[in-house]
Amino acid sequence: MIDQAIDEAATGHDEATHSSANPFFAFHVFVCTNRRPDTHPRGSCAARGSERLRDYMKVRAKELGIASVRVNTAGCLDRCELGPCVVVYPQGVWYRVQNTADVDRVLAEHLAGSNPPRDLMLPP
Amino acid sequence: MIDQAIDEAATGHDEATHSSANPFFAFHVFVCTNRRPDTHPRGSCAARGSERLRDYMKVRAKELGIASVRVNTAGCLDRCELGPCVVVYPQGVWYRVQNTADVDRVLAEHLAGSNPPRDLMLPP
Repeated sequence: MIDQAIDEAATGHDEATHSSANPFFAFHVFVCTNRRPDTHPRGSCAARGSERLRDYMKVRAKELGIASVRVNTAGCLDRCELGPCVVVYPQGVWYRVQNTADVDRVLAEHLAGSNPPRDLMLPP
Repeated sequence: MIDQAIDEAATGHDEATHSSANPFFAFHVFVCTNRRPDTHPRGSCAARGSERLRDYMKVRAKELGIASVRVNTAGCLDRCELGPCVVVYPQGVWYRVQNTADVDRVLAEHLAGSNPPRDLMLPP
């Protein structure tokens, strides 16, 4: 697997890679929990409740029994204005999750389902 | 792009996805900075110096002018025994970086190069 990962990583990100195709976590979710002062013009994900949403996502992913998912805390993902921001790798799909209902939809429709919620995705 | 991301995310991670092929960041690097008590049997990445290595990687990536790279802080990546752990997405390549020389090699040989350093990769 390491050999394949090396060969494929070496090809860059223009082609499928074995490491992406058979990742250590099928869904590695990063939730931005960066907090800026309330007066900062960009705002911040934590100020919009992302810590609570991360905690909820961790619990619900486990309760739902979704295989090979890890929900991680992340520092600033640099898309602050669009937050609270979440990115799911290796698929590289970005979401704005504003409340627990949005988290439920990402879990059910993307991670446990096959219909990632388009209306929650961040613009390119 | 959103349409493609949806279609391809829906296919799961067995095939190339447009979102992985044309990601928001070409290299999204997550450095575990989780810290456990020094007596914890698994150890922790921060106890092994990962915060300093993250800071160094951020600075060096910028100095090298690597395009479309973001180095992020991450919470526990759950591979503590192998740390300090770093994962590069969307490629999904995991590294153990023990010092600034290791960081330099990941930057030069993988992110800026085409020969990801095999000896620094984590076992599958």
